[in-house]
Amino acid sequence: MKLCTFTHNGKTRTGIVVGDTVVETGVPGTMIDVIRDWDALKPGLEAKAATGAGIALTDVKLEAPVPRPGKIFAIGLNYADHIAESGLGTPERQVWFTKAQTSVNAPYDPILIARGTMTPDYEAELVAVIGAGGKHIAAADAPAAIFGYTVGNDVTERMWQHAVPQWSLGKSFDTHAPMGPWIVTADEVGDPHALGIRCYINGEERQSSNTSHLVYNVWQQIEHLSVGMTLEPGDCLFTGTPGGIGAAMDPRQFLKPGDVVRTEIDRLGHIEGTMLAEG
Amino acid sequence: MKLCTFTHNGKTRTGIVVGDTVVETGVPGTMIDVIRDWDALKPGLEAKAATGAGIALTDVKLEAPVPRPGKIFAIGLNYADHIAESGLGTPERQVWFTKAQTSVNAPYDPILIARGTMTPDYEAELVAVIGAGGKHIAAADAPAAIFGYTVGNDVTERMWQHAVPQWSLGKSFDTHAPMGPWIVTADEVGDPHALGIRCYINGEERQSSNTSHLVYNVWQQIEHLSVGMTLEPGDCLFTGTPGGIGAAMDPRQFLKPGDVVRTEIDRLGHIEGTMLAEG
Repeated sequence: MKLCTFTHNGKTRTGIVVGDTVVETGVPGTMIDVIRDWDALKPGLEAKAATGAGIALTDVKLEAPVPRPGKIFAIGLNYADHIAESGLGTPERQVWFTKAQTSVNAPYDPILIARGTMTPDYEAELVAVIGAGGKHIAAADAPAAIFGYTVGNDVTERMWQHAVPQWSLGKSFDTHAPMGPWIVTADEVGDPHALGIRCYINGEERQSSNTSHLVYNVWQQIEHLSVGMTLEPGDCLFTGTPGGIGAAMDPRQFLKPGDVVRTEIDRLGHIEGTMLAEG
Repeated sequence: MKLCTFTHNGKTRTGIVVGDTVVETGVPGTMIDVIRDWDALKPGLEAKAATGAGIALTDVKLEAPVPRPGKIFAIGLNYADHIAESGLGTPERQVWFTKAQTSVNAPYDPILIARGTMTPDYEAELVAVIGAGGKHIAAADAPAAIFGYTVGNDVTERMWQHAVPQWSLGKSFDTHAPMGPWIVTADEVGDPHALGIRCYINGEERQSSNTSHLVYNVWQQIEHLSVGMTLEPGDCLFTGTPGGIGAAMDPRQFLKPGDVVRTEIDRLGHIEGTMLAEG
């Protein structure tokens, strides 16, 4: 199933994407509530989806599927080619940073270049959305902790990222976590480690890889994070970006106002935002 | 005014602390809602507080004042004596990391030592709670962006903090952000840069300093963070810890099950939690 958050007639609600339409779930609250109660809701929502009486996708605005995740953790240096271009060695352990809740952006909304900054860059990423979650989850049990997957871009203010040793602030600028266009539930995705992932800037392919190349796979990520933290419904994990970022090009290429950033992942769809200088 | 979140008869609500009692605000929602609507609510709540018809503090359980902040940012290396004991130089720029929303802990609740970990450490900190917030806030305007202050401890799993270059995960373990016992509104605190701050382990003083020694003061912190991020009502900023952490003692002292961690700040009060090995 495909689940989305959408705005129609000024109201933001959760929906099921059926073909080119959205069927409202009718569940009060946000996507986090849908995910939390998924086992109970699923049969009814499947029945609703089967009726197919939806609103045309072209008539709604898609929002980030989880507009306000409780937490967003993102792993660094998790594809071999990205490690090579970064000039860093393969980390001996998983390296995690965070993106602020306020950095979430709708899948087709503009991406802001904050006033006074000049080095925004793209990082196409598979995002795992936590379902049941929990703590001390063994890698073998991790699939059951995940609700589904969505497309994300870990947009990064490079100068702010590298001006200090800690990355989380330079990764947390407003609009720098576009996600969407919907969550594809884990059962429908199948193996999350076999998905082509690509990023285009103004139609030019900059990143093209496959999630099979993850250094630490999604199951290992969940095991590691849940040693200390309870993972909760709707938490989002950015699972790493492949090689091809602008900062590693020669000469370096940062995003400019008007640039169109398209991120796509097999079986999930695509998101696309235009860079906009903050007024 | 002093604002708290408390549980009484199984219900968690927001309240005004008046002497040894809590007067329920009656405002629907959480502390974030109280903060967001503060200007409109304040006269009514002041009138309520004046009636003094409250529940005895001893009859309620105090929760973290903001149980689920949208974001928690924490600045590293922000007192000269702590920089010296860390063996690091004074950073040329503000160094920020994050604590997960799920790490928030009630002021007198046990603090967990996660299964499989052995190096929990304390860091007494003044916490600024964002009020109006905003973006691109100049230091001169920062006082107006703050709702109030509370006592925090940036409990840290040291081995996890330093096992990788990024600190946010080792700072985000469940229960590792105890805060409270209430928020003292900014007008009542006065100058936040003139507050004694102390941490005791089993009654032994380990940290004792004054917020006058902050390298980057709270106003500078707000200016820096809000270049890229919108600060929102209820967001919490951990403003740095003074010297005296366990990891810098000779020999190093980490917290053990049963250790009592007491953190106190002038004009704000104290919090106190007992270390508990996770079952």
